[in-house]
Amino acid sequence: MHVAIVLFDRLTALDAVGPYEVLGQVPGTTVTFVATEPGPKRTDTGFLSLVADAALDEVPEPDVVLVPGGPGQVQAEQDGALLEWLRAADATSSWTTSVCTGSLVLGAAGLLRGKRATTYWLALEELRRHGAEPVAERVVVDAKVMTAAGVSSGIDMALALVARMHGDELAQMIQLGIEYDPQPPFDAGSPAKAPEHITGWFRAHSRFVLD
Amino acid sequence: MHVAIVLFDRLTALDAVGPYEVLGQVPGTTVTFVATEPGPKRTDTGFLSLVADAALDEVPEPDVVLVPGGPGQVQAEQDGALLEWLRAADATSSWTTSVCTGSLVLGAAGLLRGKRATTYWLALEELRRHGAEPVAERVVVDAKVMTAAGVSSGIDMALALVARMHGDELAQMIQLGIEYDPQPPFDAGSPAKAPEHITGWFRAHSRFVLD
Repeated sequence: MHVAIVLFDRLTALDAVGPYEVLGQVPGTTVTFVATEPGPKRTDTGFLSLVADAALDEVPEPDVVLVPGGPGQVQAEQDGALLEWLRAADATSSWTTSVCTGSLVLGAAGLLRGKRATTYWLALEELRRHGAEPVAERVVVDAKVMTAAGVSSGIDMALALVARMHGDELAQMIQLGIEYDPQPPFDAGSPAKAPEHITGWFRAHSRFVLD
Repeated sequence: MHVAIVLFDRLTALDAVGPYEVLGQVPGTTVTFVATEPGPKRTDTGFLSLVADAALDEVPEPDVVLVPGGPGQVQAEQDGALLEWLRAADATSSWTTSVCTGSLVLGAAGLLRGKRATTYWLALEELRRHGAEPVAERVVVDAKVMTAAGVSSGIDMALALVARMHGDELAQMIQLGIEYDPQPPFDAGSPAKAPEHITGWFRAHSRFVLD
């Protein structure tokens, strides 16, 4: 299977690297990091570059397309070459997927019309711009489109995707392989679970990156 | 605060990127990806490069040192320049940390002697080579050394580290910021929880990357 993960400047690294770490373990799989312009892409914090090895048109028919999110999604939504490639790739893909605000890029390509989808919790209503129905769940499946909520949720999504494509056993093997037995020290990872003033701070500032 | 994350060829990307995504959100923090030789480092799958922006000696006194793991740890344990830098950085760091088999690199630098530490579940006994006491827990703290278990555990470790350095509230904000409300589709992320034949397969093959 061939997985294409889209990179762009100011993406959120974990959106892409979480699912990569899962999908890249599937036997016989190739993962290619693609971009409109290949080369290093600086992530949202400015502290890290991930390298896109290939141009979009070098991977015309991936089995799985994955679009991460991050502040750079705003520019990505206006990248005509990317949107065109996404539409073409979706025409032949087995699965078209996104993490965080990557779903807004799928939406901009017209791939979420009439579909249930999710995104970063603060951006949920933005999905309506693209004719999608926002769903506040961690992983949402509608036909062959699988969307994940914010940042870290891509790990859960990728395990669910492996289970659907290759069976529960391989997904469990990979889960053990990455020792994914999460034990966060707090239970503050969703707007409903975090202390109210913390959720409120985010809503007031309406931003992802703290500064 | 200045965080130095060490990169080397054949590292496991999520070991580094998970904690980066947490620590990079701490206000006023700089994260620098460092390596013996700066430049792109190919990860263990061969599918991705992360860029080390700086040479080790460009960041002589980081507040936090983080060493990821992966198959490249074998070479890293023999990289004299890296081990020397780790010893010097540890002399002034507030925290010296690792994810997965990165703890074996800390061990090779002599930084785990007599300490409780953890690592990737299949490598736990390897810690004894370096005079450390293996502990099968997700995050282990001994004095200012914090070690995490395999791959995905670095996210939990980084949240614990933020809480200790900057308080519980900031850790909770960052947890919500990365929407870390884990919902793995299976409960197979530790050797004790995975189906016995899956854990057994790993023990028999004694390897991390499936192929």
